[in-house]
Amino acid sequence: MFQMIEVIGISPVSLSEAVKNAVSDVAKTKKDIHFFEVTEQRGCVREGKIKEFQVKVKVAFVE
Amino acid sequence: MFQMIEVIGISPVSLSEAVKNAVSDVAKTKKDIHFFEVTEQRGCVREGKIKEFQVKVKVAFVE
Amino acid sequence: MFQMIEVIGISPVSLSEAVKNAVSDVAKTKKDIHFFEVTEQRGCVREGKIKEFQVKVKVAFVE
Amino acid sequence: MFQMIEVIGISPVSLSEAVKNAVSDVAKTKKDIHFFEVTEQRGCVREGKIKEFQVKVKVAFVE
Amino acid sequence: MFQMIEVIGISPVSLSEAVKNAVSDVAKTKKDIHFFEVTEQRGCVREGKIKEFQVKVKVAFVE
Amino acid sequence: MFQMIEVIGISPVSLSEAVKNAVSDVAKTKKDIHFFEVTEQRGCVREGKIKEFQVKVKVAFVE
Amino acid sequence: MFQMIEVIGISPVSLSEAVKNAVSDVAKTKKDIHFFEVTEQRGCVREGKIKEFQVKVKVAFVE
Amino acid sequence: MFQMIEVIGISPVSLSEAVKNAVSDVAKTKKDIHFFEVTEQRGCVREGKIKEFQVKVKVAFVE
Amino acid sequence: MFQMIEVIGISPVSLSEAVKNAVSDVAKTKKDIHFFEVTEQRGCVREGKIKEFQVKVKVAFVE
Amino acid sequence: MFQMIEVIGISPVSLSEAVKNAVSDVAKTKKDIHFFEVTEQRGCVREGKIKEFQVKVKVAFVE
Amino acid sequence: MFQMIEVIGISPVSLSEAVKNAVSDVAKTKKDIHFFEVTEQRGCVREGKIKEFQVKVKVAFVE
Amino acid sequence: MFQMIEVIGISPVSLSEAVKNAVSDVAKTKKDIHFFEVTEQRGCVREGKIKEFQVKVKVAFVE
Repeated sequence: MFQMIEVIGISPVSLSEAVKNAVSDVAKTKKDIHFFEVTEQRGCVREGKIKEFQVKVKVAFVE
Repeated sequence: MFQMIEVIGISPVSLSEAVKNAVSDVAKTKKDIHFFEVTEQRGCVREGKIKEFQVKVKVAFVE
Repeated sequence: MFQMIEVIGISPVSLSEAVKNAVSDVAKTKKDIHFFEVTEQRGCVREGKIKEFQVKVKVAFVE
Repeated sequence: MFQMIEVIGISPVSLSEAVKNAVSDVAKTKKDIHFFEVTEQRGCVREGKIKEFQVKVKVAFVE
Repeated sequence: MFQMIEVIGISPVSLSEAVKNAVSDVAKTKKDIHFFEVTEQRGCVREGKIKEFQVKVKVAFVE
Repeated sequence: MFQMIEVIGISPVSLSEAVKNAVSDVAKTKKDIHFFEVTEQRGCVREGKIKEFQVKVKVAFVE
Repeated sequence: MFQMIEVIGISPVSLSEAVKNAVSDVAKTKKDIHFFEVTEQRGCVREGKIKEFQVKVKVAFVE
Repeated sequence: MFQMIEVIGISPVSLSEAVKNAVSDVAKTKKDIHFFEVTEQRGCVREGKIKEFQVKVKVAFVE
Repeated sequence: MFQMIEVIGISPVSLSEAVKNAVSDVAKTKKDIHFFEVTEQRGCVREGKIKEFQVKVKVAFVE
Repeated sequence: MFQMIEVIGISPVSLSEAVKNAVSDVAKTKKDIHFFEVTEQRGCVREGKIKEFQVKVKVAFVE
Repeated sequence: MFQMIEVIGISPVSLSEAVKNAVSDVAKTKKDIHFFEVTEQRGCVREGKIKEFQVKVKVAFVE
Repeated sequence: MFQMIEVIGISPVSLSEAVKNAVSDVAKTKKDIHFFEVTEQRGCVREGKIKEFQVKVKVAFVE
């Protein structure tokens, strides 16, 4: 059985980096991650430029 | 109060570049942009290759 | 009239590369592709790192 | 870059006429319209008959 | 207060006629109909031609 | 068992004509079509007028 | 077995009052209501002020 | 024809107040508002308490 | 990085109170909550009156 | 013309039994049922075991 | 790369049997099926009893 | 207040068994489970046969 955890990864660079950071962060506490699903893509803007991409990701792991 | 404007950003390179271009373009006329939400990701193809990524983005600004 | 075909493109690098690979793969058998729509973004993880991005894409072509 | 504007077109005749009226109306102020998407189809009824079809349409134009 | 009733109207001619038929049919038993919402558009096909459009409609009335 | 094929029918006239054209086109290669579902309604605009309605349709046939 | 009935409750005061009014109204004819689900929140405006909140609610009762 | 504008209203008090503030704010520049639709309900939290409700609202007006 | 936790807050009074209670409850164990999103609004009814509003809320916190 | 009625069927055994019970129950009062659509699948749990599956079903009948 | 094919499996017995039949049927022509996704659950009724469950399934295979 | 946990239950037999397994598994660590909601139904296939149904389930418990 998998358990899903939903997190928001961030990156100033790209959507894909934000996803990678989300997974890396979950990997610090969950050892057996199998897959992920992207559920939302947003970001914040300062002075007319994207400061960070914020990607909501559901990560599936085995406890 | 925020107002949302929905635009389509394009880029021959990547989904993230298309988002950046969407925000940059809105920033030409709206000075106080706070955040954005990606609502659709598409693109057009010519001769079997992606000619451009087209990403629909809602951009939130304060008037 | 367009026909839609739905495929899953993969890439170890990024969401955008996965989309490009999906389109390239369809282009091997369908000569007249016009556009694509991203319908799902997932991926698999091994040892705490993203092994591949998996992006579901609907590709529109003229037969 | 495209900008989207969302409007509701109306017609006593049909859904398609309501869409046409929505586009014609936007065309009065936006010169370079490229495409539209239907997002909702409703209508009002009086004395057991459809008084008007009301179709919500997102219209994409270049400013 | 409005009550919603969901019905499927049919027509061999068009989507709009199917909607009109749905409303007319509800009007036989509900006297005070105010508005409708289209929730699904389908149809059946026989010998390669559309035999009838089938449109699901929520109709709002005051009892 | 039914198989679904998704296509985009077009018509300069109406949404319903676009659906009919989608079904007719599929009927050229699939002999036993049973029903269809409308999944998206869009269109393109030139000089402020609708050039064509584009309706995405899932068509169900028996192989 | 539960049956669902969908109604629109209204209130000039708040979303929650509109929900309460929807339930009260259904309770006049259905004696054994168990739960409700909010499915849409809208309202009408006159002279720049909210005249009434209109909340669509599915109410579950045992006949 | 109605035009829709999407805004985010805020209130420290309740979801309904946030909707009212969204409508009031639009009413400063759009004179003929007819109705609104709630499309998203969120909020921000500071020190374990809700600092403000943030409600996304589509407001329909006649230009 | 934010982590999302999904809870159901309840209140006999209003939708907004149910959201506040959801956030307060999460705040007992998670110290650094930033924002919340409402994902579902329901409630239970006894003797024709709303006994409690039940609002599903995703709460974002930093661990 | 079909009319839709939405009900919740229950079963301690399986999702499919819950659907069958929903249809059987509607069949007690509606004589000419043609088809059904599953719209939600839930259930309640007591002492760590599923007490009953609860499946929401839209049932289409001719009055 | 996976390709998705969408089919409707049927069974007089249960939802799960309908899914199995959908997969078995696709397996007659596609040799390398990896996974499936259920996208819709319906069925037809005759004389107040379920005649068949009809489950729409997307099946992923490698060509 | 309920907390939701999302898990994926698996079964080689049926969708309903996969749901039961999901709930049983959560019951090993959460003592006071009240209800569940099915959010996704998939499965994997080997040699043209379903190897396992995989059902995503949100389980509600009181901590």
